[in-house]
Amino acid sequence: MSLIDSLSRAVPDDIIITDPDVMDRYLHDDAEWAPYEQAVAVIRPRDTAQVAAAVNWCIENRVAVVPRGSGTGLSGGANALAGCLVISLDAMDRVLAVDPVERTARVQPGVINNDLRARVAEDGLWYPPDPASAPWSSIGGNVATNAGGLCCVKYGVTSEYVLSLEVVTGTGKIVRVGKRTAKDVAGYDLRALLAGSEGTLGIITEVTVRLLPLPPAATAIVGYFDSLVEAGQGVANVTAAGVIPSALELVDSYCLKAVDDWKNMGLSAEAEVILLASTDVPGAAGEAEAAAIVAAFESAGATFAAVSENAEEAEAFFAARRLAYPALERLGPVLTEDICVARSKVPEVLRRIQGIGEAHDTVLAQIAHAGDGNLHPLLVTPAGDEDAKRRAQAAFEDIIAVALEAGGTVSGEHGIGLLKADGLASQLSAEVIDMHVAVKRALDPHGIMNPGKVFAVPGEE
Amino acid sequence: MSLIDSLSRAVPDDIIITDPDVMDRYLHDDAEWAPYEQAVAVIRPRDTAQVAAAVNWCIENRVAVVPRGSGTGLSGGANALAGCLVISLDAMDRVLAVDPVERTARVQPGVINNDLRARVAEDGLWYPPDPASAPWSSIGGNVATNAGGLCCVKYGVTSEYVLSLEVVTGTGKIVRVGKRTAKDVAGYDLRALLAGSEGTLGIITEVTVRLLPLPPAATAIVGYFDSLVEAGQGVANVTAAGVIPSALELVDSYCLKAVDDWKNMGLSAEAEVILLASTDVPGAAGEAEAAAIVAAFESAGATFAAVSENAEEAEAFFAARRLAYPALERLGPVLTEDICVARSKVPEVLRRIQGIGEAHDTVLAQIAHAGDGNLHPLLVTPAGDEDAKRRAQAAFEDIIAVALEAGGTVSGEHGIGLLKADGLASQLSAEVIDMHVAVKRALDPHGIMNPGKVFAVPGEE
Repeated sequence: MSLIDSLSRAVPDDIIITDPDVMDRYLHDDAEWAPYEQAVAVIRPRDTAQVAAAVNWCIENRVAVVPRGSGTGLSGGANALAGCLVISLDAMDRVLAVDPVERTARVQPGVINNDLRARVAEDGLWYPPDPASAPWSSIGGNVATNAGGLCCVKYGVTSEYVLSLEVVTGTGKIVRVGKRTAKDVAGYDLRALLAGSEGTLGIITEVTVRLLPLPPAATAIVGYFDSLVEAGQGVANVTAAGVIPSALELVDSYCLKAVDDWKNMGLSAEAEVILLASTDVPGAAGEAEAAAIVAAFESAGATFAAVSENAEEAEAFFAARRLAYPALERLGPVLTEDICVARSKVPEVLRRIQGIGEAHDTVLAQIAHAGDGNLHPLLVTPAGDEDAKRRAQAAFEDIIAVALEAGGTVSGEHGIGLLKADGLASQLSAEVIDMHVAVKRALDPHGIMNPGKVFAVPGEE
Repeated sequence: MSLIDSLSRAVPDDIIITDPDVMDRYLHDDAEWAPYEQAVAVIRPRDTAQVAAAVNWCIENRVAVVPRGSGTGLSGGANALAGCLVISLDAMDRVLAVDPVERTARVQPGVINNDLRARVAEDGLWYPPDPASAPWSSIGGNVATNAGGLCCVKYGVTSEYVLSLEVVTGTGKIVRVGKRTAKDVAGYDLRALLAGSEGTLGIITEVTVRLLPLPPAATAIVGYFDSLVEAGQGVANVTAAGVIPSALELVDSYCLKAVDDWKNMGLSAEAEVILLASTDVPGAAGEAEAAAIVAAFESAGATFAAVSENAEEAEAFFAARRLAYPALERLGPVLTEDICVARSKVPEVLRRIQGIGEAHDTVLAQIAHAGDGNLHPLLVTPAGDEDAKRRAQAAFEDIIAVALEAGGTVSGEHGIGLLKADGLASQLSAEVIDMHVAVKRALDPHGIMNPGKVFAVPGEE
């Protein structure tokens, strides 16, 4: 019996994809030049039982499992391995329950982030985590990578909004881990261990998220700067002033222009670099916060800094920030960095990154969740230019080295996947890698869960 | 060579305690009637290297390790096992660094919670986690139990303020796990796994905490109720109103009277049950929030509800809340419950707990971090009354059963230790317990780290 025949006894035929043309879009995520191989099949389960049946089939047949959400990842974490089974959770896309009194929602992993946000807003509630991919990325993938976003600077990252998870484990069991209530310290925090584990410990089949009341309307503050270093100083000044804005983003003129060329939003490129902040503190305290941010920008040398009196203009700037990555992708392959450093080091690190772009003759557009020190240099290359690709990849590695030298991390929010596995090995001590290997072997004793991603387990294929 | 002779070659003599009279206070925590045994010795290391040397000595000599902070735990997690080595971190009590710009502090585990709070306040910073034990409990113990407190309802629990940890592992290695920066998804969240693991996976030897700017002055709201159920409804109403107060505590008249008898604070016992809320939202929005809380109390049947115009009175009520446990302990042994349920179920569960007290003829005082649904029924017994002890223990088990029936947890913030191990086994599925055992064996392969606490590992002594 062929593997596919055997698979079709384990799960319904109509969730199995084997047509290579149809499969292709399920074999990789959005990470530029990250390698991927041919899968034995892709399945699109409709429920948790089908996921568990597939994992048990993989255990029996020694087939690796690669789970995926909507494939917007930027590290290759969802890229297919040779002969693997890709389990796509995109068809499990229902919001199962919203509880306005407990402020929770129970959702399937394939629910798109923005769809969840829109659904809970109907009840006056807010799901804060807002990766720039929110219109396309799914909650399951957000949890699996512990995604960040614009709001993190004040509201924290995805895992802080995950109360509990239903997971199909590496042993094919369906389990529920996490908190039953607002506070719950019963046992190990396996919820946090699974969040951000990039499919290497289990497959997330349901997520219960914690919600907040909708925040008050935010006020935007815009600052124009002549240089990255001055903008970076603006970020450091905001932090030093003891202000926690609800967003603090950096966008350079290259990104603004790319968005403008695409969407014709009429964004003037009057500055080399723009800082976009927002405050959602209501009333006089919010006005004081906005004024403190303006002052922090000005003392860093802003050529212009003001509270935006035009809500549409402010929204256009934030929209441009969110659209920067797809806008640049129109121009050619884009390799996306994702380092994070201490906020006080942002000016220096931005300067060094700029130097790396110049040294490797690579076009380097800069966007950043600057308030968290989370920098996203975008390495833009002409399509098909192999030499430019190699130069961009060399710049990518140099930026990782700068992050580590500055005491930072190789991944602030995109995850390790394939592209950052070497960086992770540099960042963590051998003893901590050993702990990772021990935990992986403990929870994935068959070595089938997304093997080779994040870190290498000796003995796994 | 005796074990002690051998130990004194591994660590300095002057950190070893073997005098039984001196040792006794290091052999147990504050959990009433939780069993403890005689240790081979207690050590009080002065640095991480001494902790690692001691753990390696334990590995070589197959001696169990029981780590402890200041011993204020309420679950027996720090209770000595027969022939174990108790490692007390109380002498490692220095604040190593405070970074006002990054808003972090690096501290040794023996630093007392309130001392850290006072130290960082000098820089205008705030360490939110505030267990009622804050004047006595240490940061290491707070992290090891993932302690809660009054502020959690708005600001979350201890682990949300832990950026990174230095840990001596079960294999005797010194490692650093956690985030280097505000956002960091490089590898598994071992930081969160260690937090709340109650010494079963490693010994915390240093903690880097995340701080916030000092919050604005809070406004207190007090509500008087004739019954627990009405007060519970007040809690549910606050939640349903979409308000997140900065504290929402419940104290019954029994507790208020006990504190008054002790501290003579002049607290009138004009109500059977008091709800204490606070809001730290500044300006008009804060006034609106306070008014919404008053309305929520009134619609639940409060006999009196008002914004406290007297800051001293409000502080006296909150002080009484914090002092309730030691005040009751003066009256005899107190067995402390720590369940957590959905906020909407607080009224019903409070009613059922009251019934349990009556059914077992046990004095039952009620305090609660009510805004989180985290209930702390205190079972008060006369000293030396064996029959009352048995009745209290039976009531304790019945309350756990009610929590589980209501979909809640056996521990909101005190941890599992010894007293809740059976409860944990009822709460978690066999498959999730298996995951715990697998993780424990992976990170503590010698089975020496606080064995038998939280859950049983087959094959460990």
